[in-house]
Amino acid sequence: MQQAIGVFDSGVGGLTVAREIMRQLPYESLVYFGDTARVPYGSKSKDTVIRYSKQIVRFLMTKNVKAIVVACNTASALALDELQDEFDIPIIGVIKPGAVAAAEATVSKNVGVIATEATVKSGSYNLCLRELDPQITVVSKACPLFVPLVEEGLLEDRITDDVIQRYLHELKDYQVDSLILGCTHYPLLRNAIGRYMGEEVNLINPAYETAKALKTLLEEKDILNRDVKTPALYAFFVSDGVDNFIKFADRVLPVDVKMTSLVNIESY
Amino acid sequence: MQQAIGVFDSGVGGLTVAREIMRQLPYESLVYFGDTARVPYGSKSKDTVIRYSKQIVRFLMTKNVKAIVVACNTASALALDELQDEFDIPIIGVIKPGAVAAAEATVSKNVGVIATEATVKSGSYNLCLRELDPQITVVSKACPLFVPLVEEGLLEDRITDDVIQRYLHELKDYQVDSLILGCTHYPLLRNAIGRYMGEEVNLINPAYETAKALKTLLEEKDILNRDVKTPALYAFFVSDGVDNFIKFADRVLPVDVKMTSLVNIESY
Repeated sequence: MQQAIGVFDSGVGGLTVAREIMRQLPYESLVYFGDTARVPYGSKSKDTVIRYSKQIVRFLMTKNVKAIVVACNTASALALDELQDEFDIPIIGVIKPGAVAAAEATVSKNVGVIATEATVKSGSYNLCLRELDPQITVVSKACPLFVPLVEEGLLEDRITDDVIQRYLHELKDYQVDSLILGCTHYPLLRNAIGRYMGEEVNLINPAYETAKALKTLLEEKDILNRDVKTPALYAFFVSDGVDNFIKFADRVLPVDVKMTSLVNIESY
Repeated sequence: MQQAIGVFDSGVGGLTVAREIMRQLPYESLVYFGDTARVPYGSKSKDTVIRYSKQIVRFLMTKNVKAIVVACNTASALALDELQDEFDIPIIGVIKPGAVAAAEATVSKNVGVIATEATVKSGSYNLCLRELDPQITVVSKACPLFVPLVEEGLLEDRITDDVIQRYLHELKDYQVDSLILGCTHYPLLRNAIGRYMGEEVNLINPAYETAKALKTLLEEKDILNRDVKTPALYAFFVSDGVDNFIKFADRVLPVDVKMTSLVNIESY
């Protein structure tokens, strides 16, 4: 089975998921699509995120992928069910793997979720956590300033610490012992968030959990690549700004990004 | 002449321009389009902003508008020339009116421009200011956190003051005596920016200047509406999230927004 895995995100953030897949499944080829023209998804309506996600899946299917990972938390929360209904290919998102890890980690049964407005509003993490363990209480908080702060490079900064305190003090008051970083950009604030929340709080990165879940899925469907001699191939596609994408990708990925192509995603 | 004026923006910010037009040209009907699905434009490439702007102009022309105002600074900076070349209808942007006002206001000949990354990178304000007065020195600064801060409602906040200080200290050191608020959201931070810069600095709001320029244009082309008995009509169109748009519009506009319609802008 030499077909690639399709991975998509609203922009560059999903590269953190691609990176985990590269690490945990080194023989799998990847086709990554970042919707850099229409980023962010976190403030958009459900209908729009579904329409955009379907266009992207149609594009990825032209690349003959064997499975698709929705690396974007917002798209996973708002569109995964519709994608699974419409397309005849295994598709997984990042919500369930993140929720499973949090449900396993929590002792106090108080779990925090930080995410975009759309993800929080969807209630997807809550639903998933309560299904896994009805005793869990979920406290969720939208943190719209985190993505722009990360994109400004203010990972360690007094302004960022101030914003973290503003957004997270309720979760701290609520004594959550596990906190899901429910947006692909948030793990980049891991140190600052960890410092504020305290080291007794488990920070859950859904990217890591999703790569594990993908491996299980490929094994179950028996579509894992068994050819360990041919090197995995990585192809990157974006809807805008190839140069900015490559700059970010080179910081995040363990491999050189040799080629990134521009796609007119609206036509799919 | 009963045709409306078309006004468009990447989202809700251009409503501040629509408001000024309503005030200064009370007999003109308006058709407003906000590209709320694809907002923001300020981090996108020139090609993408041109493609999106052309789709919007094609849509507005189906509404039989007699002139178009590009209310978005980024679209004005990146796409105005291409729009004027392609479409046979008077089209004005916000850059030139803002630059004219700043060139008139400055005594020290040091003018500051704050705007999105794309607007700053385009150099449009600089070019326009230097054409108006070659003695002017322009200091420009992209302020990517201002829009998310405004959208979070943090107009008067310690975090916002901190961010303002971070972005604007160079402009203050440079002793600019006029500062162009070169993004439709920035006038909402007018008080906080004014407090930091000091009351001797003129804050230029291109929205006000653009409405004045539009009046002149309509007079020159002899397409001003002379019928002062029929009330002006206002129609609003967005590409996503009608409810959020109405909420913002009701805060900004002097009239009730009775109807907002969703448009699939990708199909134009």
